[in-house]
Amino acid sequence: MLPSEPVVAIVGATGAVGEEMLSILAQRRFPMQSVKLLASKRSAGSVVDFRGRRLLVEELTEDSFDGVHLALFSAGKTVSKQYCPIAVQAGALVVDNSSCFRMDPAVPLVVPEVNGHVLDRITKPCIIANPNCSTIIALVAVTPLHRAVGVERMVVSTYQAASGAGAAAMKELETQAREFVAGFPYTTKIFGRQYLFNVFSHNSAVGEDGYNEEEKKLLNETRKMWEDNAVRITATCVRVPTLRAHCESINLTFRGSLKEADARDILAMAPGVKIVDDRTANKFPEPIDAAGGDDVLIGRIRADLSQAPGKGIDLFVAGDQLRKGAAQNAIQIAERFVRVKAAV
Amino acid sequence: MLPSEPVVAIVGATGAVGEEMLSILAQRRFPMQSVKLLASKRSAGSVVDFRGRRLLVEELTEDSFDGVHLALFSAGKTVSKQYCPIAVQAGALVVDNSSCFRMDPAVPLVVPEVNGHVLDRITKPCIIANPNCSTIIALVAVTPLHRAVGVERMVVSTYQAASGAGAAAMKELETQAREFVAGFPYTTKIFGRQYLFNVFSHNSAVGEDGYNEEEKKLLNETRKMWEDNAVRITATCVRVPTLRAHCESINLTFRGSLKEADARDILAMAPGVKIVDDRTANKFPEPIDAAGGDDVLIGRIRADLSQAPGKGIDLFVAGDQLRKGAAQNAIQIAERFVRVKAAV
Repeated sequence: MLPSEPVVAIVGATGAVGEEMLSILAQRRFPMQSVKLLASKRSAGSVVDFRGRRLLVEELTEDSFDGVHLALFSAGKTVSKQYCPIAVQAGALVVDNSSCFRMDPAVPLVVPEVNGHVLDRITKPCIIANPNCSTIIALVAVTPLHRAVGVERMVVSTYQAASGAGAAAMKELETQAREFVAGFPYTTKIFGRQYLFNVFSHNSAVGEDGYNEEEKKLLNETRKMWEDNAVRITATCVRVPTLRAHCESINLTFRGSLKEADARDILAMAPGVKIVDDRTANKFPEPIDAAGGDDVLIGRIRADLSQAPGKGIDLFVAGDQLRKGAAQNAIQIAERFVRVKAAV
Repeated sequence: MLPSEPVVAIVGATGAVGEEMLSILAQRRFPMQSVKLLASKRSAGSVVDFRGRRLLVEELTEDSFDGVHLALFSAGKTVSKQYCPIAVQAGALVVDNSSCFRMDPAVPLVVPEVNGHVLDRITKPCIIANPNCSTIIALVAVTPLHRAVGVERMVVSTYQAASGAGAAAMKELETQAREFVAGFPYTTKIFGRQYLFNVFSHNSAVGEDGYNEEEKKLLNETRKMWEDNAVRITATCVRVPTLRAHCESINLTFRGSLKEADARDILAMAPGVKIVDDRTANKFPEPIDAAGGDDVLIGRIRADLSQAPGKGIDLFVAGDQLRKGAAQNAIQIAERFVRVKAAV
């Protein structure tokens, strides 16, 4: 469906995820005829380096998608709602990183390592949704175990980085470090509170049931991707003062039975993961090790002592929020279409 | 058993917990004839301010406890092992903050809000153990619910501060902030790694079952204090870059049934806690709000959607590691004896 060298557009090119998309397209040598950088009027006119060339950021308009084969969106829900359908109408395949279409039954929600087969059904331009970052990182780790014995219940606590709230949030965390050292009051524009040396419940809106939107995404998106409404999930999403990689503490209850050694073997063979689980050296997944990498790091793999033998496992995972949690996953989705076409 | 104005000794007086002990004795106007500050030879000779007076830190020796009625220990397991029995022999009531005697069946392990009744049985000088900080903070929050309907299973993920590893660890975290701003390489003497903008599995030794010592303390100390070996617990203990208050994400399964509203009422009436649970303002427990305070903050109270109605609750708690997690709990234990005596 995509030509072997498509024209690619990045919508939200000057955001944290947009910049990462461009960097990953270069790094993975994604075959492209050209790349078009789109952003709001405010950011239009800025210049970005790409493979030694200077690219001008253009203002996003209804005509932006003429001649575009692949449009990667990461400019928030409102922009996606308005422009994703226009891009499809213009003939582009859209991969949308916002939450706008994720739970739309007509829209595939995809992590290639989790449910990449869904992409095989796509034969014409449409919207494909990129899941929420916490969901992607959790499911790359947990899905191989789910396929093996079935996950009955999952209890997740997250340790989420600044990057999930955008480049300005990362900058504010670093600014607060400077302010701490200088003895100045903290700048609190993004989260309205001290972030350095602090931890707080995820900044998304909290619903009547007491869950915040980030937690609900993890619950709902998992069920959709696993095509399994029986799986029981609870999550507590928390922001910690790290820059760009999320960690998650995951407790699993299995439908079947799985020994720790077998879980370890399954995870070692799984795509998109790296085992970091050195008990002697006390070396386990850390955000600074996941940052900038492709893999979800998995460690602290152990049989859960609070469940019958074989019934449960504890894990601790770390993944780059901007890469596998967003930009990289979107580009991996797009690669499926280029590769299929190239193989014809 | 204690005179109405006892002679008090603090062993490890120059450590983070020792300093906090002295400060809390002053703040709570603990009735004392005098206070004796004891430390290793290295720290002896330093001078500490106390209620406007200057106190000399003395070297800990076998004769240090002559005339001492109450000895508060926080100088590590090795010092406790050697000197707690000597202090008892000299006639002192000992409250030990180390892990040395916690699991000794003959030694009471006490959080006054959890099992304060155990203290009523004590009639002569002995060792009383102060539990691990993560255990204290979790149990102040969870015990009222356990008393109401019984906790069947508890899944805990921690967000632990630098202070648990001592004053030097707090200092190193702040130093790393200065080094980040200056562009210098990080000083990594305490944890052997970058701590600023990072998260890592708790630095205690990991056993053959994959659990680290901090996690095992939470499992074992809870069972001992609840006098309940049937309760099933798993924990994942993680260090985050905060200074002196721990947070914990706690998922509970009940033996009986408990509605969210009833759980909230029980917690609101519980001793030693403060509810911080404003869903509209997105204001929940944060380490910087718990720091320096007496209470364990409890929020994110919600019925667990992954369990049958009434069967489970999620919580997020924060407590000052140096205060309720250590020094304050030890002094609350001691206060029981002074108060009893004073009432006679």
